[in-house]
Amino acid sequence: MEELTTFELSREYIDRLEEAIEAEDNQFIVKSLDGVDPRDISSVLDELDLEGAKYVLSLLNDEIASNIIKELDPDVRSKFLKNVEPEKINRLLDNLETDDAVDIINELPVKLREEIIAGIDNEERAAYIVDLMRYEEDCAGGLMAKELVKANLNWNVVQCIDEIRRQAENVQKIYSVYVVDNNGILLGRTSLKRIILATNKTLIKDIYEPEIVSVETYMDQEEVVSVMRKYDLDAVPVVNGKGKLVGRITVDDVVDVMAEMAEAERQLMSGISEDVEEDDSVWMITRARLPWLIIGLGGGLLGAWFMGLFEEDIVLIPAMAFFIPLITATGGNVGIQSSAIVVQSLADKSGIDPGNIQRFYKGLLVSFLNAVVLAIITLLFNLILGQPSKLGFVVSIALFAVVMLASIMGTITPLILDKFKINPALASGPFITTANDLLGLGVYFVIAHYLYHM
Amino acid sequence: MEELTTFELSREYIDRLEEAIEAEDNQFIVKSLDGVDPRDISSVLDELDLEGAKYVLSLLNDEIASNIIKELDPDVRSKFLKNVEPEKINRLLDNLETDDAVDIINELPVKLREEIIAGIDNEERAAYIVDLMRYEEDCAGGLMAKELVKANLNWNVVQCIDEIRRQAENVQKIYSVYVVDNNGILLGRTSLKRIILATNKTLIKDIYEPEIVSVETYMDQEEVVSVMRKYDLDAVPVVNGKGKLVGRITVDDVVDVMAEMAEAERQLMSGISEDVEEDDSVWMITRARLPWLIIGLGGGLLGAWFMGLFEEDIVLIPAMAFFIPLITATGGNVGIQSSAIVVQSLADKSGIDPGNIQRFYKGLLVSFLNAVVLAIITLLFNLILGQPSKLGFVVSIALFAVVMLASIMGTITPLILDKFKINPALASGPFITTANDLLGLGVYFVIAHYLYHM
Repeated sequence: MEELTTFELSREYIDRLEEAIEAEDNQFIVKSLDGVDPRDISSVLDELDLEGAKYVLSLLNDEIASNIIKELDPDVRSKFLKNVEPEKINRLLDNLETDDAVDIINELPVKLREEIIAGIDNEERAAYIVDLMRYEEDCAGGLMAKELVKANLNWNVVQCIDEIRRQAENVQKIYSVYVVDNNGILLGRTSLKRIILATNKTLIKDIYEPEIVSVETYMDQEEVVSVMRKYDLDAVPVVNGKGKLVGRITVDDVVDVMAEMAEAERQLMSGISEDVEEDDSVWMITRARLPWLIIGLGGGLLGAWFMGLFEEDIVLIPAMAFFIPLITATGGNVGIQSSAIVVQSLADKSGIDPGNIQRFYKGLLVSFLNAVVLAIITLLFNLILGQPSKLGFVVSIALFAVVMLASIMGTITPLILDKFKINPALASGPFITTANDLLGLGVYFVIAHYLYHM
Repeated sequence: MEELTTFELSREYIDRLEEAIEAEDNQFIVKSLDGVDPRDISSVLDELDLEGAKYVLSLLNDEIASNIIKELDPDVRSKFLKNVEPEKINRLLDNLETDDAVDIINELPVKLREEIIAGIDNEERAAYIVDLMRYEEDCAGGLMAKELVKANLNWNVVQCIDEIRRQAENVQKIYSVYVVDNNGILLGRTSLKRIILATNKTLIKDIYEPEIVSVETYMDQEEVVSVMRKYDLDAVPVVNGKGKLVGRITVDDVVDVMAEMAEAERQLMSGISEDVEEDDSVWMITRARLPWLIIGLGGGLLGAWFMGLFEEDIVLIPAMAFFIPLITATGGNVGIQSSAIVVQSLADKSGIDPGNIQRFYKGLLVSFLNAVVLAIITLLFNLILGQPSKLGFVVSIALFAVVMLASIMGTITPLILDKFKINPALASGPFITTANDLLGLGVYFVIAHYLYHM
């Protein structure tokens, strides 16, 4: 067994490789990368400067090079493909499945795109690629590849094996053989296992399963993920509005979509506005972070202005100020918890939707319990530490009100965002924290003001 | 094509089903669930009370019932299996792959567990199950199933097909045929596609690929996920320390692990301490939320005590209080952003680790830029709104310091947690917000105090 996983990217190797590039020591470069998985080579290239990476790539054969290109970050890739002649790009794309080829073509400038498509020799492939380019990236049509093995209902096993042989080069992993009628309408599936175990003359119609889960081209990618997860599918056939088989989506695409969704959500929850990673430039990271910080700062400045209206109260009772962070922080924490629970149940759509009214009452009840406990703890603290008892009561009443309001806001905001097709995880981020800070201050000062002047 | 996806869970159906259960109208129950996917039936049972669900289950045949049992929530499942005779449990488990069977056995009381294992008729299967029970749930050994197809290097295709036929019933999806030597040591793999396309007399050694990615039994499940994602694997063979093939992990397990990881992270980031869902009881949700709120409250009370030390400053300059939420909120936002970026790069381990020192300097630089911009905006606001100019400077200086410190804390905390093998996403939650609130207050009041008394 030759283990592929043993390739460990090390700083020493990269240093050695950079020297070899400098010295044009092609033998070392080719030899040290021989047999290494394209995905690992792609990580190696990520560590080199653009010229060095291009140089290494030019030494590798087209098949390996195309798999490396596929693995690169889109922005690195477009730099890579700049100034490469269209013929070379076509040679590289020829080794990829149609869905990956289309993703790359779509990143190219429009003019180059046309040249590439005109340059595809295989007519069937060209038609496939043009067909796939019609779809939005984030729907089933945008995820699917055209490569699949389909068999007519009336074929026998030998005819089906001939078709598998014909497609063997194009279809890397077969998963299922899809069964269609004479018009290409999807009828069901059969497996390679059944084909192997059948006799040559067995008809496909006798070994196929008519129950099959399929998705339509326009289905949203998150729905595709949830269908494939629910039914544990390795591949799902994609049909058009008439039920005709037009492509298939494989599980590796789904795994990628899930990882993207998790990352997008983490960024939304943390107030980072673009898709940045730690190794992006300082400027890019700053640009991704600053807008949310400025929104938060705006909230803080608004809060400062608002408290200015109550300056007299603070002069009268300076201890009021002590409890500002307690009020705002608790409101923020409650709001984020409430929204996280709603976001989670929106993400995970099994079971019957409890209905917004029921959801709302339940959230309210949980918050009521929390609010009572927190208010009592705070009151006890104030009584023990001998804050003027009136202030202690004011703080606890305000805290109670803030917890209830923050919980209502935390529950409603993701539902509203979801209604408008905005990712509800946005509501778990700095957005709701800022809103809750202002809400908390408002409630605290208004309650304090009126209770003291009663 | 019979679409499985058309089964839509509706309140009307559940109501009708509950009536049928009440009336013992078995015909309706069985007929309405005929041909419905076990996963969908499992969602139906989730909506019924325990007695009703048990009644429905008793009407279904063992194979469907076992697949339903597999899909149930673990806590619902253990209620289900309570008081069911061990023989019946064995009949149900017999229809499941070994990994799923072991997960269920491990949830049972120890005494029952022994009875179940003693009751397994098939000796090979019993040995498999006992073997799997040794592994921790969250390592490769705990994820793997024993079902797989392996072929000896020296077999020909006919012998291999015989083996496939022998295993056909046990192995639902074959993916790869693993190639081993006479001692069971993993050497490589071949595919059903290659077997179909080869002639009967072809030897396995002539159509197998010696390059294969495998994982060892003790590998952490998150590493397994990252290996399988990196190499786009549908299944990965698991070997023991000697390289002997002992099981395989399939992609559906990985998808489940990814979903669990995303959910656990969301909960950590939102300050919810247990694995709760919206349809859990009010009491469970409260218990999961309250501890974090109390920690936050503790921070707030500590903050209140701390500010008490500076009461004289507030009496002197009440406007100081206006900027408390601005300072604490900005510190919190910066801290969460910084930690989210570190957490993300810890989660996604491609490329060379930039090293903690380099990471640290880069984070510092980003924060410096952010800090300067935020401090200037705040200063301009204060100058325009005519706050006493000294206070304006104090607030901006404190804001600058808080942004820098919060960023350092946000960067370091997840690295430290990761070092101690604690999920670093914990650092993106209320924990760091609370710490940053206190930090922010400390910096603000100390700076204000000394600048004013200079």
